[in-house]
Amino acid sequence: MASRTATELLHPDRAQLRFTTVLAALGDPVRLAIVARLADVEPDGELACTTFALPVSKSTQSGHFKTLREAGVIRQRDEGTRRLNRLRRDDLDARFPGLLDLAIPQGRQVIAGW
Amino acid sequence: MASRTATELLHPDRAQLRFTTVLAALGDPVRLAIVARLADVEPDGELACTTFALPVSKSTQSGHFKTLREAGVIRQRDEGTRRLNRLRRDDLDARFPGLLDLAIPQGRQVIAGW
Repeated sequence: MASRTATELLHPDRAQLRFTTVLAALGDPVRLAIVARLADVEPDGELACTTFALPVSKSTQSGHFKTLREAGVIRQRDEGTRRLNRLRRDDLDARFPGLLDLAIPQGRQVIAGW
Repeated sequence: MASRTATELLHPDRAQLRFTTVLAALGDPVRLAIVARLADVEPDGELACTTFALPVSKSTQSGHFKTLREAGVIRQRDEGTRRLNRLRRDDLDARFPGLLDLAIPQGRQVIAGW
């Protein structure tokens, strides 16, 4: 059993999501770009961490994914050696209607500027 | 000339506002509460820093106001010994429509929980 797959990935429930924590998670260009990319895969589509090609180091990237997961913005699960990411659109739309609709176009602009 | 009134208070122009910087500024309960209080004074109303009665130390409070000003969320000016704060609603609504409408009720909830 690899330590990677043994790591428990904690996710806040929908009711536990906090507006300020979500805003702080979205308040970074790299994290906002991750959200926009996840939003642009088909509904409930998943992307492996390794597919994002972000302009930061691998460890920095891992930290960004963790921040998004712990804030409740994304859901992560391990499949073999891959860590898959999915946007928690339903939960976020239910708790903070309109926030993702504001954030996603801004994230696309970040990506367009890279 | 007091050093306080001689301090130059820098404000980003409307065109310089960055979405992620504004989100990061709003992504804190105390700062979100400040925004909600400023939103609830009459249009273009100003409040002195000393009137907020926030559950943090004076120096922490000053840091929060500075973060909001540098992100472009509030405008500050000195009048005698008072530092007055005003929400930049027009600028924020022009650049990020809907964001304040989402944030202000959440800030009111923070205040209600104190």
